[in-house]
Amino acid sequence: MPIFYTPTLNSSSKEITISDTEFKHIKNTLRKKIGDILNLTNGNGLLAECIIKEFSPREIILQIERIDKKEKSHPHIALAFSLLKQHNELIIEKCTELGVYEFFPFFAERNVKTSLSTHQFERLEKVAIAALKQCDSTYLPQIHKPLAFGELLKNLSQNYYPILAWEEELHGLHEVLEHADKDICLIIGPEGGFVKQEVDFAREHSAQIVSLGNHILRTETAAITISANTIFYQLKRNRNFY
Amino acid sequence: MPIFYTPTLNSSSKEITISDTEFKHIKNTLRKKIGDILNLTNGNGLLAECIIKEFSPREIILQIERIDKKEKSHPHIALAFSLLKQHNELIIEKCTELGVYEFFPFFAERNVKTSLSTHQFERLEKVAIAALKQCDSTYLPQIHKPLAFGELLKNLSQNYYPILAWEEELHGLHEVLEHADKDICLIIGPEGGFVKQEVDFAREHSAQIVSLGNHILRTETAAITISANTIFYQLKRNRNFY
Repeated sequence: MPIFYTPTLNSSSKEITISDTEFKHIKNTLRKKIGDILNLTNGNGLLAECIIKEFSPREIILQIERIDKKEKSHPHIALAFSLLKQHNELIIEKCTELGVYEFFPFFAERNVKTSLSTHQFERLEKVAIAALKQCDSTYLPQIHKPLAFGELLKNLSQNYYPILAWEEELHGLHEVLEHADKDICLIIGPEGGFVKQEVDFAREHSAQIVSLGNHILRTETAAITISANTIFYQLKRNRNFY
Repeated sequence: MPIFYTPTLNSSSKEITISDTEFKHIKNTLRKKIGDILNLTNGNGLLAECIIKEFSPREIILQIERIDKKEKSHPHIALAFSLLKQHNELIIEKCTELGVYEFFPFFAERNVKTSLSTHQFERLEKVAIAALKQCDSTYLPQIHKPLAFGELLKNLSQNYYPILAWEEELHGLHEVLEHADKDICLIIGPEGGFVKQEVDFAREHSAQIVSLGNHILRTETAAITISANTIFYQLKRNRNFY
């Protein structure tokens, strides 16, 4: 059963009103009726089991039966990725499913895409919400406004253990994951790859540089792969990693 | 530089003629000229460095300067996946990039898609070739004709160590990978999941059943994730894993 995203849900909510797109999805697509059960999340760990109490022409009123809080495991996994000409939505969708906590889109020197419109940004947010609903997750990843690579790196290194994938590196991802002592930010470059100066700059800002193996991966494949592998590594340490 | 797929290439080739789609790609898209260097593969490990010797209106003649053989590492990683209504191409593309050696599409009980036309099958082959070229790989994965799940399982278990992902299992992928004593076949079920009888049947045919973590993944995401994680595991043991 999909989960519904309702940011107004809080831990003391007794009743929730749903309108707009979610309303249409529940009423017209899923054909839910009074008395049916629905799950809601606020996208920040709350999971509510609700009963449909009332339909009006434009709203559904839900009575909350139970609210649980799911804790997001540490280390949080963030993904910084160079905005692509295509496939940004694929990255957001797949990495949200996997459980990435936060996205930092950026512009690097070899970026083909050099701007992101408000419409495109909002579209990425919608893709994340759809992935959250589909995958029964309770954490909606935050998508930050895009920054230039250098600016992003300076901010990141304070709060994150940055790991940057570069095809010219020999160290494997597993070698650096074991030294991660805070939340992790994975970094994937543009279609044409990072220039060496960017990699050096990242290294100066505490980034660990890793190889993802012996095949050249498209950027979006690299983003999904490094996220999947990092989560796989955490699951090995903690089978409840969420 | 992309690599070109030329199945007629063999280890004693001195000259190769390229026509059709590859010809157009080299001449019109890449605008290559006489004397330019191109790399070719036969999709079975051979990598040839060639010089463009002659253009005719419909063909390019290449002189082979050097041929190397790249060995595919063991264990080979195969992927058996339930044919989806959509996203089969995404699975083939991404898993070819990652280095999956062989694909076994199948039909399971809850399959929404219940047939694959010749056109659709050929399209999957084209996607694999495009991924091979893009990713500078020298092994073109074989895509087998689809089978019913039960029939596939009986054949698989003779040559492969089968690993099936099921959301109701508790064992992690890493726990079973360490016991793999032959080539590995990863198995991913349909949109609605495997029915319990299918999982039991797989278990009776030597399959190890694993969980991919604590998030529900779409089928195509599960296929990419289990392939990426299995290759990551091999890279940890052998950094030259290819």
